Amino acid sequence: MKTTLKLVGTASLALLAAAGTALAQDTAAAAPEAPQFALASETAYIFNTLLFLIGGFLVMWMAAGFAMLEAGMVRAKNVSMQCLKNITLYSIAGLMFWITGYNLMYTGVDGGYLGSFGPYAFDAVGGNALDTGYSTASDWYFQMVFCATTASIVSGTLAERIKLWPFLIFTVILTGFIYPIAGSWKWGAGWLDGMGFSDFAGSTLVHSVGGWAALAGALVLGARNGKYTANGVHPMPGSSMPLATLGTFILWLGWFGFNGASQLAMGTIADVTDVSRIFANTNMAAAAGVVVAVILTQVLYKKVDVTMALNGALAGLVSITAEPLAPSVWQAVFVGAVGGVIVVFTVPLLDKLKIDDVVGAIPVHLVAGIWGTLIVPLSNSDASYSVQIIGIVAYGVFAFVISLVVWLILKSTIGIRASAEEEALGLDKAEVGIEAYPEFGQGSQRV
Amino acid sequence: MKTTLKLVGTASLALLAAAGTALAQDTAAAAPEAPQFALASETAYIFNTLLFLIGGFLVMWMAAGFAMLEAGMVRAKNVSMQCLKNITLYSIAGLMFWITGYNLMYTGVDGGYLGSFGPYAFDAVGGNALDTGYSTASDWYFQMVFCATTASIVSGTLAERIKLWPFLIFTVILTGFIYPIAGSWKWGAGWLDGMGFSDFAGSTLVHSVGGWAALAGALVLGARNGKYTANGVHPMPGSSMPLATLGTFILWLGWFGFNGASQLAMGTIADVTDVSRIFANTNMAAAAGVVVAVILTQVLYKKVDVTMALNGALAGLVSITAEPLAPSVWQAVFVGAVGGVIVVFTVPLLDKLKIDDVVGAIPVHLVAGIWGTLIVPLSNSDASYSVQIIGIVAYGVFAFVISLVVWLILKSTIGIRASAEEEALGLDKAEVGIEAYPEFGQGSQRV
Amino acid sequence: MKTTLKLVGTASLALLAAAGTALAQDTAAAAPEAPQFALASETAYIFNTLLFLIGGFLVMWMAAGFAMLEAGMVRAKNVSMQCLKNITLYSIAGLMFWITGYNLMYTGVDGGYLGSFGPYAFDAVGGNALDTGYSTASDWYFQMVFCATTASIVSGTLAERIKLWPFLIFTVILTGFIYPIAGSWKWGAGWLDGMGFSDFAGSTLVHSVGGWAALAGALVLGARNGKYTANGVHPMPGSSMPLATLGTFILWLGWFGFNGASQLAMGTIADVTDVSRIFANTNMAAAAGVVVAVILTQVLYKKVDVTMALNGALAGLVSITAEPLAPSVWQAVFVGAVGGVIVVFTVPLLDKLKIDDVVGAIPVHLVAGIWGTLIVPLSNSDASYSVQIIGIVAYGVFAFVISLVVWLILKSTIGIRASAEEEALGLDKAEVGIEAYPEFGQGSQRV
Repeated sequence: MKTTLKLVGTASLALLAAAGTALAQDTAAAAPEAPQFALASETAYIFNTLLFLIGGFLVMWMAAGFAMLEAGMVRAKNVSMQCLKNITLYSIAGLMFWITGYNLMYTGVDGGYLGSFGPYAFDAVGGNALDTGYSTASDWYFQMVFCATTASIVSGTLAERIKLWPFLIFTVILTGFIYPIAGSWKWGAGWLDGMGFSDFAGSTLVHSVGGWAALAGALVLGARNGKYTANGVHPMPGSSMPLATLGTFILWLGWFGFNGASQLAMGTIADVTDVSRIFANTNMAAAAGVVVAVILTQVLYKKVDVTMALNGALAGLVSITAEPLAPSVWQAVFVGAVGGVIVVFTVPLLDKLKIDDVVGAIPVHLVAGIWGTLIVPLSNSDASYSVQIIGIVAYGVFAFVISLVVWLILKSTIGIRASAEEEALGLDKAEVGIEAYPEFGQGSQRV
Repeated sequence: MKTTLKLVGTASLALLAAAGTALAQDTAAAAPEAPQFALASETAYIFNTLLFLIGGFLVMWMAAGFAMLEAGMVRAKNVSMQCLKNITLYSIAGLMFWITGYNLMYTGVDGGYLGSFGPYAFDAVGGNALDTGYSTASDWYFQMVFCATTASIVSGTLAERIKLWPFLIFTVILTGFIYPIAGSWKWGAGWLDGMGFSDFAGSTLVHSVGGWAALAGALVLGARNGKYTANGVHPMPGSSMPLATLGTFILWLGWFGFNGASQLAMGTIADVTDVSRIFANTNMAAAAGVVVAVILTQVLYKKVDVTMALNGALAGLVSITAEPLAPSVWQAVFVGAVGGVIVVFTVPLLDKLKIDDVVGAIPVHLVAGIWGTLIVPLSNSDASYSVQIIGIVAYGVFAFVISLVVWLILKSTIGIRASAEEEALGLDKAEVGIEAYPEFGQGSQRV
Repeated sequence: MKTTLKLVGTASLALLAAAGTALAQDTAAAAPEAPQFALASETAYIFNTLLFLIGGFLVMWMAAGFAMLEAGMVRAKNVSMQCLKNITLYSIAGLMFWITGYNLMYTGVDGGYLGSFGPYAFDAVGGNALDTGYSTASDWYFQMVFCATTASIVSGTLAERIKLWPFLIFTVILTGFIYPIAGSWKWGAGWLDGMGFSDFAGSTLVHSVGGWAALAGALVLGARNGKYTANGVHPMPGSSMPLATLGTFILWLGWFGFNGASQLAMGTIADVTDVSRIFANTNMAAAAGVVVAVILTQVLYKKVDVTMALNGALAGLVSITAEPLAPSVWQAVFVGAVGGVIVVFTVPLLDKLKIDDVVGAIPVHLVAGIWGTLIVPLSNSDASYSVQIIGIVAYGVFAFVISLVVWLILKSTIGIRASAEEEALGLDKAEVGIEAYPEFGQGSQRV
């Protein structure tokens, strides 16, 4: 690697020397000694691309966060399956967002309802198309990890009873078609963008779309056997609170990339200052979500439910995602705090409706996502409540109906639900063949 | 997001064009073709802010590190509680460092003993106050995560017998008042800074302050029931060594941000070179701490205690934190190695004193923090041993006495200790209502 | 820290003012008002150094990834040992790569077979040797974490039966001598670099070298007792699939630093664009490895083995590491997909050969590393298949033979294998004295 650097260094000096020629010609006598200055547009290009790369790897890391959150929130007999689903869905998202996703979402939408079909192509090696302002591969990478996040949301809700392959097929459709088409309406400069709909980093585009897909799946799939009985809700506690906590911290960390890098530029002091504001506001909203959830569960239940604290953080994060830049700190705290309230009241509400959401993804991603999108005009005067509602409804109808149709087709063809025996046995033994904790729990007798 | 970028790009070019005007006026004929160069002050502003953001998210990640370390070092019946405390204390720190902390620590200290009261305000959206040299929100974010670290230290020592709410109330006081006031003395340009006290990234300001607060709490709270018996120390082994190991690796990773970004600037080659030196020295000290702890425990106990290796890493890190830049590599190795020695000998010493420190935070953060602060003059000729001792004593008296008073008030009012029954049952069942591992350990019989 | 910043800021302005003097002299009248521009070479230096630091901390994080992967793949009775080995090997690598490693690998190799002996020295404080193009400490840090990766690979293969101290002694030799000497041949501009051997980020230099050392160890050490019986292979399932999954996600994340920062520069738009391409291609190869492993295990075994999916990701990553820049996306997918195939077929092949590789490191790092190195000429026209084969063979002979000799010496002197009783009891009780999960599994009866 060392020798490469020398070549690169030489090449870069040559390039810079060439770039400096225009100036040198005006001060010809001084040319041999004149220092070479960095072009503003090149410096900005590097900073913008770096923002995508850093933001991208932080959001990529959220895939691990969802994996750990879900591994902690399901029972031990389904943990291997949840791990398998999460690493596979992230992989599928990576492939599909290249094969169809990126172009469907961003290329030639032009005020319409979807982009064009076909795989995306990156810059050539040594590419230097300065006019884009950033590397196209860095942009693809950053947008791809958002796509993967949408699929992660679905995985948690449907855990412990959906079969592997129908879930993976749905993931192909979600990441290759549903999410990119929905995304094109706003971020691809489609019809909702033309109307002035506002969703900075995806409370609706990512989180609610994932939430609607999860809700449709939960309705078609039904609750876990034994969850809702004549005697009320039967609790099925998650197998590992520390893994769920780890997952939440990972997601919180990743969210700085999710929201911060959605500024999409840091080549000027105004941009990097805005990225910083977004970091601070994002943290404030999450913190408020936790504190509110902790206090509320103490007041309501006389105990502080750790899963509510975790989901309070996530709901605060989802809530601020639609507008993490414009709010004052007070507003960010308010937006996140309401997210915490939403979680505490929506989780039991879903149980009353007998909608079985294993990790609480629907309250966190769908309901808090709607709240966050709705409240944008509070801080951002360019947004209007009416257009926000139009956007929320449009995304809801599209994502829910298409997902419902896909789930129903999958159900009526290959089937989506594990058999009652498989569900009782656990999906790890039934479909994965590898127990998550072979020596603990039931396995304790063996050792 | 895509369309936003175009606007931002245009705005940024306009800004740069404006910035370039002064030059253009001197070379008027060349103006239309002249390339635009990046202003050095703007480029430095972006780099400095980026350092705060990267350093900040790395230190934020340390909150997860403490959570995992503590979840691994407590018994299974208290793991949910430890997770709950860690995510909540990080949230409280975030709110308090905005409500009172930042201004108490940094605004108007002016050689004195504390700053001013009131919430902190960030840059406006699109802010471009170039003269600060960095975004104020990025600075707030970076300093806030340091504040949270202080609170994390307390959490580990007092685990397994302190009640949730008094711990959270203490956290409010620690993060909103004790830490910021103490911090103002040095980093806020207060009286100790005027005397020439030296603490680069917080061996004393962060780690010892947290350690003193933890020690005061441990004394007021007392040891866990059954820990110190007539027959000697009763070991209460942690429930998960891999989680403790994960936590340590997270902390090690985060420490590159903790120490490296405490350079506070990387807009010049001198600054970024110093940040690099700090990375290397930080790693050296931690590595030396591990190797020394491994060898020493082998020699002393004929077995290599993994918890000592982990705490050796942390003690090495704490030790180098007061001065990670000036030491040569040899000095960094020496400073970290002594940290490893400290851990191996101080952990059993605390047990002899019947001070019950569940995770070893007092040896790691308080004692190694004192060592690291004391040894600064070895490598940094601007520091003096006498002033270092004055600083160590001043911080010790302040943090210990105030913390003791707060703990005693909490004890005599709402009470701080779980009942003997609750402690025996485990705090997860008593206060959280959610077991960390419902299917393992005691739960194995159920599955 | 705040006051420091002011000084630094002033110093930096002074420096920049000085740097600008050459220009100012030519436009003397305008000097007082003239804006100061960033020097291209300084800006590039900062970006290059920042790339090393970011890439470095991402690869450092891979040490935690290996720790978690191995902790999840060994049985509960050996988890503490595996944690201990991983944190200690990372520490040893850090020390040895300073004491001998860096200079052996990079200094004065000059077309030969090794560099010079002696500890490495970093830039002075406030260093500003602009001509190197980056901070030497940042380069050391980045190269050191690669060295540590090599040692991590060995740890996984030999788990559950090797004693601690011979493993640590081997680590000293591997990280201080074997890896650096092997590395010097290519990255130190040694003889293989002169021949045109191509290995961008280390499919061979890091992964195969580690794999050969592991294979030699596995042959000398022998299989775990009871693994290969007259009745066939006795499965010894790993204790925690979520930890193995976490480890894999950590490694995947770290690989963006591993491959991306191996571009070694991002001070020009061409370089940062290449880094972006590398990020995208790296992700593609890993995703393809997962999907292929998932489909293949479903077809072959009618169940989807989660450990194969995880190893499929890693094999895809190793495969693309020799050339992550040149491939088109299609080629990256192909290279990674073959990595997935390799894992699925090589893991059972090793079992047939009765080579006991606890975590599958030989298929993932050695075999996929060979594949990745071999296929470089497919996309990179500067490479030739014949030279790639020469390099693969040369590295194989050197790393395997030297490792074999070292293992045999260790075996015949201090012994490398735990006794049958210790192995049955578990290394945690035998050598560490701390159980990983004292309350679970066997420990469940106690609680």
